[in-house]
Amino acid sequence: MAKLKTWVSIPKNSDFSIYNLPFGIFSLKGDRPRAGIAIGEQIVDLSVLANLGLLEVNASYFKNSALNDFISLGKKITNKVRLDVQRLLTIENSPLKIHSAAFIFQKDVKMHLPIHVGDYTDFYSSIEHATNVGKMFRDPENALLPNWRHIPIGYHGRASSIVISGTNIHRPMGQVKTNDMKVPVFKASGNLDFELEMGFIVGKGTNLGERISTKNAAEHIFGLVLFNDWSARDIQKWEYVPLGPFLGKSFASSMSPWIVTLEALAPFKVQGPLQKPEVLSYLQYEGENNYDIKLEVSMSSQSSGDTVISTSNFKFMYWNMMQQLAHHTVNGCNVNVGDVMASGTISGKDESSFGSLLEISWGGKKPFKLKDGSERTFIEDNDTVTMRGFAEKEGKRVGFGEVSGTILPSK
Amino acid sequence: MAKLKTWVSIPKNSDFSIYNLPFGIFSLKGDRPRAGIAIGEQIVDLSVLANLGLLEVNASYFKNSALNDFISLGKKITNKVRLDVQRLLTIENSPLKIHSAAFIFQKDVKMHLPIHVGDYTDFYSSIEHATNVGKMFRDPENALLPNWRHIPIGYHGRASSIVISGTNIHRPMGQVKTNDMKVPVFKASGNLDFELEMGFIVGKGTNLGERISTKNAAEHIFGLVLFNDWSARDIQKWEYVPLGPFLGKSFASSMSPWIVTLEALAPFKVQGPLQKPEVLSYLQYEGENNYDIKLEVSMSSQSSGDTVISTSNFKFMYWNMMQQLAHHTVNGCNVNVGDVMASGTISGKDESSFGSLLEISWGGKKPFKLKDGSERTFIEDNDTVTMRGFAEKEGKRVGFGEVSGTILPSK
Repeated sequence: MAKLKTWVSIPKNSDFSIYNLPFGIFSLKGDRPRAGIAIGEQIVDLSVLANLGLLEVNASYFKNSALNDFISLGKKITNKVRLDVQRLLTIENSPLKIHSAAFIFQKDVKMHLPIHVGDYTDFYSSIEHATNVGKMFRDPENALLPNWRHIPIGYHGRASSIVISGTNIHRPMGQVKTNDMKVPVFKASGNLDFELEMGFIVGKGTNLGERISTKNAAEHIFGLVLFNDWSARDIQKWEYVPLGPFLGKSFASSMSPWIVTLEALAPFKVQGPLQKPEVLSYLQYEGENNYDIKLEVSMSSQSSGDTVISTSNFKFMYWNMMQQLAHHTVNGCNVNVGDVMASGTISGKDESSFGSLLEISWGGKKPFKLKDGSERTFIEDNDTVTMRGFAEKEGKRVGFGEVSGTILPSK
Repeated sequence: MAKLKTWVSIPKNSDFSIYNLPFGIFSLKGDRPRAGIAIGEQIVDLSVLANLGLLEVNASYFKNSALNDFISLGKKITNKVRLDVQRLLTIENSPLKIHSAAFIFQKDVKMHLPIHVGDYTDFYSSIEHATNVGKMFRDPENALLPNWRHIPIGYHGRASSIVISGTNIHRPMGQVKTNDMKVPVFKASGNLDFELEMGFIVGKGTNLGERISTKNAAEHIFGLVLFNDWSARDIQKWEYVPLGPFLGKSFASSMSPWIVTLEALAPFKVQGPLQKPEVLSYLQYEGENNYDIKLEVSMSSQSSGDTVISTSNFKFMYWNMMQQLAHHTVNGCNVNVGDVMASGTISGKDESSFGSLLEISWGGKKPFKLKDGSERTFIEDNDTVTMRGFAEKEGKRVGFGEVSGTILPSK
């Protein structure tokens, strides 16, 4: 990574350095949503730049309420837009210096879901998480199911209920039947949980019948976001056999607003865990396909400040994104620009790196404390869960900001 | 049902009688897709009628490649369009009699997916099917899982790979591991199956956090289609634990082109099966909510004619659509216009009414014959599967046409 110097004032440790430049959709009060790039505490308004003739893309692409049409232009163009903005923010005689209308402070805008999500798939790709869940839900001696090391296990999730960070969510109601009950009851979920995940956004679609190889998968990934796959464990436990999670998940999933491009994350590639036994040839890959992204979950009640309850890392994933995409399409399933594929809970080996309360409180048996001294096993009403993530190397930081959500009482 | 007489010539036993008038999207060669209503062997071009000032809807709503915007106008308007067309096709001095451009023969058009599908949910609502599958996949003594009579079990399906009737589908490749294998292999599915289903199209959306009651559910259902949930049983069996079906289903699902409105089906309502034990209050309902729709599956090879291999009925469903929609939204999950919710395989008690080859051939153990004498347990390359369905009462027929698809060799 060559060292870059921008003339924009950027706070120390900002996620949105000159090396990042993620894409998002924002609106000013009373105005329509449009596309921007985050830099420090500000947003570069891409439609203003396009109108000034500084980008080789028509401004109309940036005046949409979602990035799908822009992303569909292809990486050759979207990467050039990002690099053109990078140049405009670094060159001494930048025309942007006299165009203050091109800059808007993030604190003054409302962020929106950056893409219209066609289909949403949730994987289950952390071996530590799958093992922990298997121990609790099934057999501690055979926690990992026989297929797990052969298949990047995943399932279709609900696209309609993906919401932008900051959206409050009412505690879901649903059917629950614990072992001591003879019949199920209808009640508010008592085991409300989060799942620390990352999601990637499909940037290039395929036709029905086509496959994506692990080698070509990166071409089809536009970028990544933080993703909180809220989960009602009691509802999930009663409903999930035999067809998988449904209402235990579909009440909401939260996404961070800025899509960090795969290109911005390239310097942070690392080798993934050794896969044993060897995977089938269509899942084999070359080179580094995991990403060293530091992740953190914090929780706060109305009276407590933020308490960090988990520190994990995206590099722990057993199955990488290239394998997920190759698997997803190996049967000919088509993907579309804007599809979201989430990683599954990102847990590490250590207890401090567990990515869900199910694991942190070990099924509710091990309470933990927030800063105000109050105990938690699962999420209580008015608690806020915030996930943050960034990559850093040689003093260069590329971060995601946060995905945050507050749980309101059921209604 | 009052007796109606149309001046349009309609073949005897046509699915598209004057009592039906379903909506679809068609195109003439070289022309853009637009909306029509089927009548006999013809299509009424709704944009022509709108341009003539015969409908109270702007023609632009009918010049879309999907019905979503039209459906979003609400039942008050969409029902009126259907009834206005019915009136125009029955009155003696109809202005349509001199406008031949308003009529196009179905044989001359290409049909398209009638809606843009946001989310697709597949239920599992036939007690006979769930019992049969449970006997084969799990424990014959406890075939029905404990949650089945309490929850209309369902899962999220893949929306992107829903295709219109007539689309050829390549046999999917995937991971398979039979009991005699030590490790999985990558191969073409050897147990390719269909599932005879019906799907309903959501006609009125909800916001996140809202619920639909069984009483109000009909307002949210625009109409129904025939639905073939193609299934690769060998892929499904190895992958589905613990998160449900994924690549065993996502290679394709086929839909019939004409959406038959809930209003056209109203005369065919019947009482559903007794639900025991009593369901939770949010799933209770009043009145008749099942529909007497005769269903039939036929199969043909390249050398055989059509062989009817199953005759079933939509009225067999244990869980009705109102309950499915109430359950789907009870956790606050939002639905959108154009969402598809399929019934799950529609099997009856009798062997002749089983809705999948898994059941018909009892897991491949009981071969059956096509007209040319060739044996089948599952679908072979170049076989065509066709599903048909209609309701009939007092000589009045409301039908769905067909959903058909041919399986091509894997590629």
